[in-house]
Amino acid sequence: MADWFADGVPVEQVAIGDRGFQYGDGLFETIAIRDGEPRLWQYHMDRLERGCKTLGIVMPTATGLREGVNHALQQSRVLAAYSVVKIVLSAGSGVRGYGRVPVASPTVLHGVFPASPPPLESYRDGIDLALCETRLALGSATAGLKTMNRLEQVLARSEFVDTGEFEGLTMDTDGNIICGTMSNVFFVNDNSIATPSLQRCGVEGVMRRHIIACLKKQGIETRFQTLRLADLGDCDEVFVSNSQFGVMPVRSCTNNQWPVGETTRRVMSILAKNGVIECR
Amino acid sequence: MADWFADGVPVEQVAIGDRGFQYGDGLFETIAIRDGEPRLWQYHMDRLERGCKTLGIVMPTATGLREGVNHALQQSRVLAAYSVVKIVLSAGSGVRGYGRVPVASPTVLHGVFPASPPPLESYRDGIDLALCETRLALGSATAGLKTMNRLEQVLARSEFVDTGEFEGLTMDTDGNIICGTMSNVFFVNDNSIATPSLQRCGVEGVMRRHIIACLKKQGIETRFQTLRLADLGDCDEVFVSNSQFGVMPVRSCTNNQWPVGETTRRVMSILAKNGVIECR
Repeated sequence: MADWFADGVPVEQVAIGDRGFQYGDGLFETIAIRDGEPRLWQYHMDRLERGCKTLGIVMPTATGLREGVNHALQQSRVLAAYSVVKIVLSAGSGVRGYGRVPVASPTVLHGVFPASPPPLESYRDGIDLALCETRLALGSATAGLKTMNRLEQVLARSEFVDTGEFEGLTMDTDGNIICGTMSNVFFVNDNSIATPSLQRCGVEGVMRRHIIACLKKQGIETRFQTLRLADLGDCDEVFVSNSQFGVMPVRSCTNNQWPVGETTRRVMSILAKNGVIECR
Repeated sequence: MADWFADGVPVEQVAIGDRGFQYGDGLFETIAIRDGEPRLWQYHMDRLERGCKTLGIVMPTATGLREGVNHALQQSRVLAAYSVVKIVLSAGSGVRGYGRVPVASPTVLHGVFPASPPPLESYRDGIDLALCETRLALGSATAGLKTMNRLEQVLARSEFVDTGEFEGLTMDTDGNIICGTMSNVFFVNDNSIATPSLQRCGVEGVMRRHIIACLKKQGIETRFQTLRLADLGDCDEVFVSNSQFGVMPVRSCTNNQWPVGETTRRVMSILAKNGVIECR
């Protein structure tokens, strides 16, 4: 169960006329709280700001949003040290119809959710990826952003609820591998690290950005490269990233298998030194 | 203002945890009420059922949904004779995370909105179309359906809120003309009628289906053909359709101009005889 707050006040409902409900007209960020503090806060704010620009929503101040996080954590029944705060920013209530002028007063909600780190075995032995049939549409006007239009992820993720894989890989309409349903994916080839471009679809995860930045500081460049499904077998290592779990090695996807390799271990070790305690 | 009802009871809010709000995980239908009765009811139910199948939501019975419409119209403060009922069917509340099993008990809401027919001049002289910059992503997993993921339409429609055109034309990522932000589009060439295929994106409007069916009964075939922007100028006539306004002639889009031609008049006359009073 989650505790939700609006302006520091506990809330459980939102107006039916809210454009977030009617059209998915809004954005969200799912922020890892570690030792009571939001992790990668600035990256979350950057993405939210890009989203606001694209959607025509006036960005609330980061200070105000941060105060909202603090209030929510203080008031929530959820143990705050290791948890998740979800900020929802919708275009607010309006008249029926798609059109609107830029939104100066969006609906702002802070939700606190309990969290627990994934099992150590997943980090040690790697996880299995499902391959999703749901394809990501190409040329999305909101590519890279975390909007409240998430049906593609819902459909893709629901494909392997029964089979129990930890995550699923999604391709775009043209058959290029793009990302996981809730994660980004990285490929290692000849010690070189690559991740798909997200110019045409997919979500640019904050952990993906953190990885690229941390590697860069170590003199390691990440290439942006879109992989075909057929190329998966040629990869030496595969790993996925997400704001909550950090980096996880992938050991299999369909009939492809990979070891938990040196490069993935090194990336995890670099992340562990950069605030991602799960990668220790 | 709208009046909303759930199970015949007036409601104003929905749970924040509702997947409709969190992810746009749901469907809706916007139904014209004429003389107190829902128009094209079966077509709305057919599309909703297709949507339920794709989204993995168990379709409520059409009888129950129809009773909901009747209750809502009876109880609403909105004058019921000429109005709009919006049925919202979301995947209901669930835990955080994209994945879910098929939903047996969705959130079902009925909203009643006031309506009034567009000005007679629009039917007589035609309307102006904006050309939207927002492109529709290709290969959507929910192409043709009316899901609660409507950001593309929100962005496209918002482009011409200020300039005041009645409707805007949207293209897909490849530059093919697909539909309006809230309507479908038809082209007339050498007395032959065509409308874009909606296999890869766009919404299959119930009025579009009604037009195709009514024309077929008259021995007139509608071709499914995707038009490039450059082909617009070659069209003899253009018209748009929507569940509320029926058919409206288009007189201009950017620097293209069209007369309100014979074929459009004929389509309107056929529709007028088939329950679409606006086309009289």
